[in-house]
Amino acid sequence: MAVPNLQIALDHNELESAIQDVMKVGDIVDIIEVGTILCLQEGQKAIKCIRAMYPNKIIIADTKCADAGTTVAKNVAEGGANWMTAICSATLPTMEAALKEVDELQVELYGDWTLEQAKEWYKLGISQVIYHQSRDALLAGGSWGKKDLNQVQALIDLGFKVSVTGGLTVDTLKLFKGMDVHTFITGRGITGAKDPVKAASEFKTEIRSIWG
Amino acid sequence: MAVPNLQIALDHNELESAIQDVMKVGDIVDIIEVGTILCLQEGQKAIKCIRAMYPNKIIIADTKCADAGTTVAKNVAEGGANWMTAICSATLPTMEAALKEVDELQVELYGDWTLEQAKEWYKLGISQVIYHQSRDALLAGGSWGKKDLNQVQALIDLGFKVSVTGGLTVDTLKLFKGMDVHTFITGRGITGAKDPVKAASEFKTEIRSIWG
Repeated sequence: MAVPNLQIALDHNELESAIQDVMKVGDIVDIIEVGTILCLQEGQKAIKCIRAMYPNKIIIADTKCADAGTTVAKNVAEGGANWMTAICSATLPTMEAALKEVDELQVELYGDWTLEQAKEWYKLGISQVIYHQSRDALLAGGSWGKKDLNQVQALIDLGFKVSVTGGLTVDTLKLFKGMDVHTFITGRGITGAKDPVKAASEFKTEIRSIWG
Repeated sequence: MAVPNLQIALDHNELESAIQDVMKVGDIVDIIEVGTILCLQEGQKAIKCIRAMYPNKIIIADTKCADAGTTVAKNVAEGGANWMTAICSATLPTMEAALKEVDELQVELYGDWTLEQAKEWYKLGISQVIYHQSRDALLAGGSWGKKDLNQVQALIDLGFKVSVTGGLTVDTLKLFKGMDVHTFITGRGITGAKDPVKAASEFKTEIRSIWG
């Protein structure tokens, strides 16, 4: 079982603060995500700036693409993103089109997706999914539970590299022990910490201690 | 039955060309949409520029919001958008959060949504849905048919203001005759025409001729 990656999600409203935060922890984390909020606020320039800062990191554009797969994917790839996200309710032609333009496409799981759909995505050549606890659902009282973990395992069993995100803390990582999680994604778990460098390092240390 | 609106979707890769195109037809159309591609490429600035050009038009930010409803909606409202789109696979808490920050929220219908879900959105206070023929699905050979028209009518019957989009031409408008469509959305049907002013005017004339 490989050691899971740590991914920082930059969900900032302004490029300036995103840059400020990522330069503290960019060398510690494995993957940098240009979050949806940042994409919508600052556009392709946000991807370009992060790529300029970290020429060798995997960068994800969290576009949650729902349509116009070719154009959206071409644009983020041109900006310097390696991977891109698509929303689970995108049609298969949209996913297929996007897949051709980026190194890897990640399907982001919200709402009423099914494992049957997931099999279709896999057949299409999609290797990654993101199991996402909605921020708003978390705020409304939802949290990680047995049902979530079973779903994550089912996706791993289908062959996907599965990223998990939503309300993750260093303490919740052990919930996933024994599971072949590909990546843990956190945003404010790092950027919102008093000491982001310490927070990122603690995530890395705990991941290594469980999976290393 | 009210006369349906005509909405132009600005799905440009650059702000410059979007501005160039919209200033030709902005006074003819009823609603201006800052499309997903433009939002992702140019950020909030795109909304601000279009608002500066058209202080009194309804402007839609086609974010296809899937999460972080409060933040995304606050940001587009701050940019000057009146309405915003959310993807149908967003959770109800996300939609509810977004709804508080914009004048109206439009649920964009992709993939396997159901009328049961639509009833939940309506209960939440969401008044608009967008029936969307995926650009990629159209490219893959799909088109408007009886099934689509029945779905649109079912949504109207539920009480929604329904916008329709995807491969619309002046000639296809008559397919919707007798239906209380709220808005027809077209992008390249206008911006891709040899004479965009003529194209927009022909859309308006045909809409008035059928529904006027």
